Amino acid sequence: MLYLLDIIGTMAFAISGVLTAFHKKLDPFGVFIIAFVTAVGGGTLRDVLIGRTPVGWMQDLNYVYAIIIGFVLALIFRKKLDKLRKSLLLFDTIGLGVFTLIGLEKGIAIDLHPIICIALGTMTACFGGVIRDILCNEIPVIFRREIYATICIIGGIVFFALEYFEVSNDLIYLITSLVIISIRLFAVKFKWYLPTIGKNVIS
Amino acid sequence: MLYLLDIIGTMAFAISGVLTAFHKKLDPFGVFIIAFVTAVGGGTLRDVLIGRTPVGWMQDLNYVYAIIIGFVLALIFRKKLDKLRKSLLLFDTIGLGVFTLIGLEKGIAIDLHPIICIALGTMTACFGGVIRDILCNEIPVIFRREIYATICIIGGIVFFALEYFEVSNDLIYLITSLVIISIRLFAVKFKWYLPTIGKNVIS
Amino acid sequence: MLYLLDIIGTMAFAISGVLTAFHKKLDPFGVFIIAFVTAVGGGTLRDVLIGRTPVGWMQDLNYVYAIIIGFVLALIFRKKLDKLRKSLLLFDTIGLGVFTLIGLEKGIAIDLHPIICIALGTMTACFGGVIRDILCNEIPVIFRREIYATICIIGGIVFFALEYFEVSNDLIYLITSLVIISIRLFAVKFKWYLPTIGKNVIS
Repeated sequence: MLYLLDIIGTMAFAISGVLTAFHKKLDPFGVFIIAFVTAVGGGTLRDVLIGRTPVGWMQDLNYVYAIIIGFVLALIFRKKLDKLRKSLLLFDTIGLGVFTLIGLEKGIAIDLHPIICIALGTMTACFGGVIRDILCNEIPVIFRREIYATICIIGGIVFFALEYFEVSNDLIYLITSLVIISIRLFAVKFKWYLPTIGKNVIS
Repeated sequence: MLYLLDIIGTMAFAISGVLTAFHKKLDPFGVFIIAFVTAVGGGTLRDVLIGRTPVGWMQDLNYVYAIIIGFVLALIFRKKLDKLRKSLLLFDTIGLGVFTLIGLEKGIAIDLHPIICIALGTMTACFGGVIRDILCNEIPVIFRREIYATICIIGGIVFFALEYFEVSNDLIYLITSLVIISIRLFAVKFKWYLPTIGKNVIS
Repeated sequence: MLYLLDIIGTMAFAISGVLTAFHKKLDPFGVFIIAFVTAVGGGTLRDVLIGRTPVGWMQDLNYVYAIIIGFVLALIFRKKLDKLRKSLLLFDTIGLGVFTLIGLEKGIAIDLHPIICIALGTMTACFGGVIRDILCNEIPVIFRREIYATICIIGGIVFFALEYFEVSNDLIYLITSLVIISIRLFAVKFKWYLPTIGKNVIS
C-alpha cells in the first residue's frame, strides 16, 4: 500500500516537475531531467547521505517507469493540466506525506536519532524541489515562502510522539500521513505562508 | 587504450571548463575548480550515486595531473585556443565517447539494469558540464539546446543492442564510441539542436 | 580540544550563514538551511566523496545543536552583530583552520595521497560556503575574489612539509592552524584578493 502510494507520489512529483520546467524554455531532455530530480532527488540525496547505494531508483525501475509515464502524460495533457489542478494537488500532497514517512523509515532502520530521522523525512519530501530549483537557476521556493518543509517537520514530530505513546505502527503511519496531507491542503486553501526575515528587519 | 583516451578526454574537458570560466571573471582558484568539475564532475556524481567511494579521481592521481596540465595549457595558450578550436572539439568529442563507455561499464560491473547503465553513461559524459553551469549560475546548457545527452543515450542503446547480438566486446566498444563521436561531429557541423518546449507551447 | 574548536567553528559558520541569508529575503526555514549547509556542507561533501556515511553530523548531534544555537543567537542579536564583527571573524577564522585540519585528518586516515588530503581539507573548510552561494543563486564568492581556499591549500602544504620533517603531531596541528589563522587575519586586514582572470584578458 505504502509502496503503491510512493509510486503514485513519484509520478505526481514528476508531473509537477514538468510543469515547472515548462516555464524555462528547456529542450525535452532538460524537461525530463527536471521531472526526474523533482521526483527522486530528495530520496537520492537522502540515500547518498546515509550511504544507501546504489541509490533507490537504480535498484527499482518502477520509479523510473513512473517518472517516464508522468513525463509523457504531462506532455500529452499539458493544455488540460489546468483543469486537473485539484487532482494534481491531491496526488502531490499524498506524495508529500508518503515521502516523509519513507524518509523517517530509512533513518529509523539504521538507528539514527529522531531529530536526524525527521531531517531525512523532510529531505526526502522537499529536496527534490530544491534540486529542481537549483537546476532552474532559482532560489529554492521552499526557502522563500512555502511552508512545505515545516509541514514535514510537524509530521515527523507527530510520528515520534505517537511512537513514544506506543501507538501501533499502522496507526502511526495513517495518522502521520493524514496530518501532513490535511495541513498541506489547509495551507493551500487558506494561503498560509511563512514570513520572510531579512534585510528589512535589520534596517 | 581506453584508459589513455580517458585521460586525454579528461584533459580536453578541463580545457573546455577553463574556456567557460573565462567568461565569468573568476579568480585562478575559481577557474581551476570549474575546470576540475567539468572534467571529473560527471564521474564523481556517478561514483557517489552507485557508492563507489572514495570517488575515482581520489584513487588515481593521473586524472588530477591531467586536469592540472589542461588548466595550465589553457592559461598559457588562451589567446591561441581559437585557432585550435577544431582539435579541441575532436578531443572533447573523444572524451564524450569514452566517458559514456566508462559509465556504462561501471553500471554493468555491479549488475544494474541496462536503462540505469545508460543513465550512468550519460551522467558520466554530461553532468560535469551540468555542475559547471550550476557553479557558474546558469541553467545547464545541455537542458536547453545541446543534443549532447541525446547522443550519449543513443550510444548506450547501440551498446546494448550490439551486446544483445553477441558482438565481441572490443567491437562493441569501437562501434559505440564511433557512433557517439560521428553523431556529435555531424551535430556540430550541421547545427542540430533539440527544440525547446514550454510556455510558448502552452499559451 | 580540536573537537571543542570544531564545535565553536561550526557555530561561527552557522552565524555567518544566517548573515548571508538575511540579504536574500528567505523564510525562517530557508535561513536555517543556509546556516546548516554553511556550517556542515563542506564536511558533508567530503564524507560523501570518501564514502564516510552516514555523514558526520548524522552521527554526532552536537554539530546540529551548535548550528541551532548559532541560528538562534544570530536571530536574537541580529541588530548587534555589526558590533561583534571582530569576534565573529575570529571564530570564523578558527573554524577555517580547524575544518582544514579535520579534512586533512580524514584523508590521511584512509591513506589517500597528500594532494587529495589537501583537497579534502580545503573542501571541508570552504565548500559549505560554495553550497550556500549556490542555494542563494550566486556564483560562489570564493571563486571570485576571496583567498579563503588558497589559505587552506597553503595550510595543507605546511602540514605535510612539517610531517616530512618529522615534527611531532601536536606541533604540526598547532603550527598549521596558526599559519591558516594568521594569513586569514592578515588577508582581511590588508584586503588581499586574488586577481580575476578572464574575458578582459583574452580581448
